[in-house]
Amino acid sequence: MGISYGVIGTGALGGFYGGMLAKTGHEVHFLFRSDYEFVRKNGLQVDSIYGDFHLSKVNAYRSTDEMPKCDVLLVCLKTTGNHQLAEILKPVIHPNSVVILLQNGLGLEEALARELPKTDIAGGLAFICSNKVGPGHIAHLDFGKLIIGSHNMTNCEILEKVISNFQLSGINTELAPDLEFARWNKLVWNVPFNGLTVVMNTTTDKLMANLHTRKLCRELMLEVIRGAKACGIPLEESLVQQMIDMTIRMKPYAPSMKLDYDRKRPLEIEYIYSKPVEAAYDAGFDMQKVSMLEKQLKFISDNLL
Amino acid sequence: MGISYGVIGTGALGGFYGGMLAKTGHEVHFLFRSDYEFVRKNGLQVDSIYGDFHLSKVNAYRSTDEMPKCDVLLVCLKTTGNHQLAEILKPVIHPNSVVILLQNGLGLEEALARELPKTDIAGGLAFICSNKVGPGHIAHLDFGKLIIGSHNMTNCEILEKVISNFQLSGINTELAPDLEFARWNKLVWNVPFNGLTVVMNTTTDKLMANLHTRKLCRELMLEVIRGAKACGIPLEESLVQQMIDMTIRMKPYAPSMKLDYDRKRPLEIEYIYSKPVEAAYDAGFDMQKVSMLEKQLKFISDNLL
Repeated sequence: MGISYGVIGTGALGGFYGGMLAKTGHEVHFLFRSDYEFVRKNGLQVDSIYGDFHLSKVNAYRSTDEMPKCDVLLVCLKTTGNHQLAEILKPVIHPNSVVILLQNGLGLEEALARELPKTDIAGGLAFICSNKVGPGHIAHLDFGKLIIGSHNMTNCEILEKVISNFQLSGINTELAPDLEFARWNKLVWNVPFNGLTVVMNTTTDKLMANLHTRKLCRELMLEVIRGAKACGIPLEESLVQQMIDMTIRMKPYAPSMKLDYDRKRPLEIEYIYSKPVEAAYDAGFDMQKVSMLEKQLKFISDNLL
Repeated sequence: MGISYGVIGTGALGGFYGGMLAKTGHEVHFLFRSDYEFVRKNGLQVDSIYGDFHLSKVNAYRSTDEMPKCDVLLVCLKTTGNHQLAEILKPVIHPNSVVILLQNGLGLEEALARELPKTDIAGGLAFICSNKVGPGHIAHLDFGKLIIGSHNMTNCEILEKVISNFQLSGINTELAPDLEFARWNKLVWNVPFNGLTVVMNTTTDKLMANLHTRKLCRELMLEVIRGAKACGIPLEESLVQQMIDMTIRMKPYAPSMKLDYDRKRPLEIEYIYSKPVEAAYDAGFDMQKVSMLEKQLKFISDNLL
């Protein structure tokens, strides 16, 4: 019998990854908010660099109370709502369910494990440029790789099956031997580009084209790498150049935090900035510039949203 | 015989301080740009918390070529034009003239002394909230103190006379025993508030009302104090609390850099940010947050102005 999937939050991420699984024939149940009625009538449209597709019949729900329990829950919500996450998940988890947090930042699994201590929890990182461009309409613009790792699981067999399902659906997916390593690794990119595109009200290409902000991005990246090292995560400093090169090659991009800012939605400051700053500080390293960016973002969040 | 004054740049600063001297009967020659015709016809209006006044007959000039040589030149131009300053001054200085740079930042006198090695140079710092509100129209809103100090003068007698003239004109004026100390001291306020009001697009009161930016202002101030210490300038860390308290008491204020930003004029980044960052770095202290603010301002200056 196949694994049943629940996509908790069907936006740019959940719509794409859940959609790819559903397209390949997997049982996928999707949680929607505002798009529910639209998707029930019109289905889900994914425009992807891997090939566009349309799902005309979607298992769509407005609330987890209406959803069946699922083997694997892919959490694709913004972390700004994570204080309610345990309550949202309770109706859809059974004793052997795995919750995979496809979210950015640090300390997410710890927070959920405090509220759901008996549940298997994993984390995932999506290296993807995708946006929701309209109701039930996702655009996948670039990249797409997925990295998944266990947080507190004693048996990772089901994660291997999930990874195999993703791979057979056309998604480049890997098992992370160390989830914390993977999370810090991704922060090296997210910290400079999510925050600076908001504070400077710009896009990645403009930050790269200007010598001063390109240097600042390098410095922020290096600070995250040193913060990670203080926490016992051995990231290489050569990552900085790799990520700068990758970002220069990328199409002009507005990261998710910039889109949230433009749409006057809450910013994911807590798990992308505050938790890493705290963790590094507690381990003896003061990420001064990251902490400055955190304060600038909090001012924006408190005043302009 | 009295001292003759030349005001090089008659804006918020030059219009007020030069105007106060002229009102008391001193010989003052004013250099104007766009306001020249207006002031020739209508005179100069100063609305001041010390009492409003109008000068109907103003010695106004469009160029220093038309001006008489003066004993004291009060330079009140933006530092963004300082690369042309020596050329502007040459027609109005005689062998015993003193040039007083009433400008913010570090390294200003050194730069001018390289071009005018035989000229007596001093610096001045204006602790004032004043704005140009229209052609030939200055509004003095708060404070007003002036601190003047020698850069390379062997005899400071003339500075003492200038200070006496200002005092008798109603300006609280002091001789700075150490000009570098006074310049760094003022940077402790200018660095956080000029830059952050631009980058966060806000005013001083909002930066103070938000806990995160208030903390960031403190941290930037402390960094400037430590940068000064590295350069041998013994500023006290208690300055931070004094300046925070003063700023909280101040009326909502847009510092000069914010006004320049709003009017899409060049920002004074070089002498307020780059020179202090360089000086501290060369003395062994990395002002990390100030340097981050410098880079954010340069991005804005390169892209938005």
